[in-house]
Amino acid sequence: MSFSRLQRRIDQLKNPTVVGLDPDLAHIPASILDKHMSEHGEGLEAAALAVYEWGVGLIDALCDIVPALKPQSAFYEALGPHGVLTLKKTCDYARSKGMYVIIDAKRGDIGSTAAAYASAYLGRITVGNSTFAPFDGDALTVNAYLGSDGVLPFLSDAKQYDKAIFALVKTSNPSAGELQDKVAQGSGEKVYTLVGDLLAEISKDSLDDMGFSRIGAVVGATYPEESAFLRARLPNTFFLVPGYGAQGGSAADVAVAFNPEGKGAIVNSSRGIIAAWKKSGGGYADAARDAAIAMRDELRGVV
Amino acid sequence: MSFSRLQRRIDQLKNPTVVGLDPDLAHIPASILDKHMSEHGEGLEAAALAVYEWGVGLIDALCDIVPALKPQSAFYEALGPHGVLTLKKTCDYARSKGMYVIIDAKRGDIGSTAAAYASAYLGRITVGNSTFAPFDGDALTVNAYLGSDGVLPFLSDAKQYDKAIFALVKTSNPSAGELQDKVAQGSGEKVYTLVGDLLAEISKDSLDDMGFSRIGAVVGATYPEESAFLRARLPNTFFLVPGYGAQGGSAADVAVAFNPEGKGAIVNSSRGIIAAWKKSGGGYADAARDAAIAMRDELRGVV
Repeated sequence: MSFSRLQRRIDQLKNPTVVGLDPDLAHIPASILDKHMSEHGEGLEAAALAVYEWGVGLIDALCDIVPALKPQSAFYEALGPHGVLTLKKTCDYARSKGMYVIIDAKRGDIGSTAAAYASAYLGRITVGNSTFAPFDGDALTVNAYLGSDGVLPFLSDAKQYDKAIFALVKTSNPSAGELQDKVAQGSGEKVYTLVGDLLAEISKDSLDDMGFSRIGAVVGATYPEESAFLRARLPNTFFLVPGYGAQGGSAADVAVAFNPEGKGAIVNSSRGIIAAWKKSGGGYADAARDAAIAMRDELRGVV
Repeated sequence: MSFSRLQRRIDQLKNPTVVGLDPDLAHIPASILDKHMSEHGEGLEAAALAVYEWGVGLIDALCDIVPALKPQSAFYEALGPHGVLTLKKTCDYARSKGMYVIIDAKRGDIGSTAAAYASAYLGRITVGNSTFAPFDGDALTVNAYLGSDGVLPFLSDAKQYDKAIFALVKTSNPSAGELQDKVAQGSGEKVYTLVGDLLAEISKDSLDDMGFSRIGAVVGATYPEESAFLRARLPNTFFLVPGYGAQGGSAADVAVAFNPEGKGAIVNSSRGIIAAWKKSGGGYADAARDAAIAMRDELRGVV
């Protein structure tokens, strides 16, 4: 879905939050896992069914206050094919509840292979005379290290099916700068700036009615100076901002990712919401809702 | 599996080839797809079953002459959860036939998420008191744009379970250089060189009995000068060389990726082998075997 539609849902709920669904089994209450293991035995199928039940509980608790969900594919893949089936079912359920689904899979490859990833997560695939949408995300995270011909197939499907992508620009992790902060001779710009410029250039013909292109950028909250710099440089780029909360980014740190109208960015929290029950006690879904409301109110104070 | 074990299998078969299994449905003979569609209807399940049958046929035709197989995850994922199950079954079957399995998924993420990907493709995951290997590849391709803390979790599992990874250094596609060829101020080195150096540095304590570290490098055959430069600079790094054949790399272009002893590299061909039947006529498996023998003999001439 285009970013203007995401922005409208954010405006409606007055909440620029995306909840990161990271189904590390350590975040799943033991009672849910035990129930499925007693039915299906100790195995990846039971774990995947438990993760689905847990995700549905979170979506039900969050969908009227949080506009978007970001399932982290890695944790689903770690449960094998059963886990990938749970990823698909979870995406379907979240969309049925009105949430904007960002599949966080950080895919990237060369032309024809990138096109296959795009078909999987954003597009369609034809078998015989029938056409299917394998995962049907609203958006997908993408890694642009291979250059523009690794990104253009995603942009192509995004345009065709009214979807979007977020490409990694400046990530939130401690060693992000090892490559991303290198300064290039000639332009004098850092690698992450060059990536951002490249993405803006190849997507400049895809602006929606609010002026956002179909290629957004992942820009970590843990580097607020870089975030402010990129915000000014890339006015048509929607930002996905990880690193708030557990990773150390504050509300003030994320505020700089928004444009002067307070739009154009969405802030992710994963553990701070989905694992809130471990600190607060009580049910996991209620604890997640309370944490999401607290985050929303904190963001309202600075955006 | 460590690269010395891969090298021994290469030496045994006198063939430094890996066959890339890219199950684009256009490469699957219609008779196989039709058979499964008549049993299961036009859908992703039928397509995934057809891809499995096709892969088994290729593995049977190749396993006594080709040491390694590189399933391209993107095309399996494009068939949804059924396709991912076929990926797992295909990896299992190839390993049972003695092939070294490189899962080409180009994963990369920050710490805990990278650890989940490592568990999925190289390591183990625990459910209750039982432990499972979800995909159990011998090696995995990885994208290092996030820096060392996005790579170290893969190295950790590689050490623990006797596996290996190949990180993208200089890819084979036309736009590879847009970011990878930028020259960094200070060192005066290109980004791909800095990536190669970083990977060599963090894996230097993981050398096997032949002197190969557990982090290999993807170095495209389409840039032979850069390949020769990296070969000299990274003596302990095993190279995975895409770009031979359909993408334009010649036997002479790939020869420079090998060390002076003619070891330390494996050359990929995908379409040139798996889709050989479209040019040659005849059965797809026999055509693939003939093409693989021709490639082997061509490589023997230059390595």
